[in-house]
Amino acid sequence: MDTIRDIDTVDIDLSEPAVVAIDQRLLPNEVRLLRLRTEEEIYDAIKALAVRGAPAIGVCAALGIYVVAERISRESASDEEFIKEYIAASDYIDSSRPTAVNLSWALRRMKKCLLTQYETEEVERESVLLTLQREAVAIRDEDIEMCKKIGEYGAELISDGDGILTHCNAGRLATVRYGTATSPMYRAFGQGKNIKVYCDETRPLLQGARLTSYELFSAGIDTTVICDGMSASLMRDGRIQMVIVGCDRVAANGDVANKIGTSMVAAVAHYYGVPFYVAGPGSPIDLSTPTGRDIVIEQRDGSEVTDKWYEKPMAPKGVGVYNPAFDVTDAALITGIITERGILRAPYTESLKEVFKK
Amino acid sequence: MDTIRDIDTVDIDLSEPAVVAIDQRLLPNEVRLLRLRTEEEIYDAIKALAVRGAPAIGVCAALGIYVVAERISRESASDEEFIKEYIAASDYIDSSRPTAVNLSWALRRMKKCLLTQYETEEVERESVLLTLQREAVAIRDEDIEMCKKIGEYGAELISDGDGILTHCNAGRLATVRYGTATSPMYRAFGQGKNIKVYCDETRPLLQGARLTSYELFSAGIDTTVICDGMSASLMRDGRIQMVIVGCDRVAANGDVANKIGTSMVAAVAHYYGVPFYVAGPGSPIDLSTPTGRDIVIEQRDGSEVTDKWYEKPMAPKGVGVYNPAFDVTDAALITGIITERGILRAPYTESLKEVFKK
Repeated sequence: MDTIRDIDTVDIDLSEPAVVAIDQRLLPNEVRLLRLRTEEEIYDAIKALAVRGAPAIGVCAALGIYVVAERISRESASDEEFIKEYIAASDYIDSSRPTAVNLSWALRRMKKCLLTQYETEEVERESVLLTLQREAVAIRDEDIEMCKKIGEYGAELISDGDGILTHCNAGRLATVRYGTATSPMYRAFGQGKNIKVYCDETRPLLQGARLTSYELFSAGIDTTVICDGMSASLMRDGRIQMVIVGCDRVAANGDVANKIGTSMVAAVAHYYGVPFYVAGPGSPIDLSTPTGRDIVIEQRDGSEVTDKWYEKPMAPKGVGVYNPAFDVTDAALITGIITERGILRAPYTESLKEVFKK
Repeated sequence: MDTIRDIDTVDIDLSEPAVVAIDQRLLPNEVRLLRLRTEEEIYDAIKALAVRGAPAIGVCAALGIYVVAERISRESASDEEFIKEYIAASDYIDSSRPTAVNLSWALRRMKKCLLTQYETEEVERESVLLTLQREAVAIRDEDIEMCKKIGEYGAELISDGDGILTHCNAGRLATVRYGTATSPMYRAFGQGKNIKVYCDETRPLLQGARLTSYELFSAGIDTTVICDGMSASLMRDGRIQMVIVGCDRVAANGDVANKIGTSMVAAVAHYYGVPFYVAGPGSPIDLSTPTGRDIVIEQRDGSEVTDKWYEKPMAPKGVGVYNPAFDVTDAALITGIITERGILRAPYTESLKEVFKK
């Protein structure tokens, strides 16, 4: 089996330049690298979930808009045209996934980096591009460092012998390296702790089975795939000591938007008294969104549920299908939020503001 | 689309005789009838889930052992040989599914019918077989009548405009006609109530998507398929007013074994304050099993999770897979048990004993 163990999920080849990303649609059966050069290729890769996971999407967009800026710069006669085309490309990439806040965040940061340079002084186009490149690479490197920190803090929660449940993929494949929810697992495993990780397969797109179980198993961790309806049974039997999931967005009150199915696990963990942790770097933390009710949830095509993966449809033609990409977990169900700045506890309105307010 | 609307799930063709059953593995794309004549065919049909659902399995076993008895009778030189071969065939069929109590119950009742005849007087073989046939047909007819009663009691819980969630298939396809969990829905719909039913697809075998959504949609009911991780999201949005599921076994304290995933839904419904009802005729009620802890849970092959339905495996080769067929829902999570004798409420230790103790 090829392995993704030593490949970063999203990287940049500066020689071309191109974004180099693992095509996650082909895992676990094939490791193929995509080379993304145009805004259309970047948009499509994010939209079609070849690159997925909030942090990886953010890094892909940052590296991607730099790659696109190189071409736009060559094609633009004036700075005005360059800026106008850059913003159009940036807005286009930004529209590929509505819920992942990292996408907008990374693109806003890149745009600010661009516009600031033109505001302050006369600048050479080459210098502008180099500064954009450094900003994009910094976004990537910060992601790696944040994930590492999450692992350091989170690993302290894990004891030898623990059974840990995770949902979807908030793993190294959702970031550049280490992952968010998985980073404490990799760290604890590296510390010699004997852990057993249960991966919700995560319907309809099966990221848990295809991606999370693949990356953990590749790393040598004791890994078990379960269907999304099975964790209550394991919790009832005392086989799960904690849940760690990622997050796509955290509202100011601590409500968390994450992959559909997360809030089921949270409610069940609550009932069985199993601690439920959310892991995520600061970027999905959105203090301008008061509560989970204010988060727009992306609705995806029903055929992902009834047709994708199958030779024949698994439901009668014409039946209704409900297929939201995310759900919202009430802050009250969350034991702690593991961030690169430490583990936050309720009341989240206070702890989030204290740690993340500029 | 062919429809199963007017076909009983399990029936008997007395002319041959043979059990005639819908092959549920082919739904929703094809309606094909199986003709089961031998104990091997009956065993295989139940084991491979061509016939599934606790009540349908019980009826299939009862009709089936009668069909088999006809052949054994022809092949047996003596009554002793006939009885011995009958018991061997009955035990063999009984071993096809370990958790469904209806299977053992129906076969015990048939065996008792056989042995009682030989205990009391000199009997003609022909008369023995006719009595066995009547007993098997009575088991079938009682199933139809019990489901009808469940529908009458359960429909009173349903209001116009309700959203109802169900898990797996405790529908007409799990019984002879009407279903258990679905019977109140068919009844309420027939009374002109406007209902909207959400069907958990029910991994790994997708009975909810393939069977429940198919039979409800065929009947003209507003039906929506969801993945097993999605109901929390609907409950949070106030779109589900009640959950009705079936049961494979009910312990004396009201703990319920049902399709894996049921207890997740129950815990989530509890958190969101949505009433959670279990529907089932008396036969799965097993007062000799004190609590859910005493129920043996069937473990099935992991390939059902990772390989079945797919062109390529959805998890890396060698990874662990956990695949129990059932889980146990705590009595504390159950709002009521809808039976053919009325709706039982907590404390179940009392109400079950009162209504079902012989």
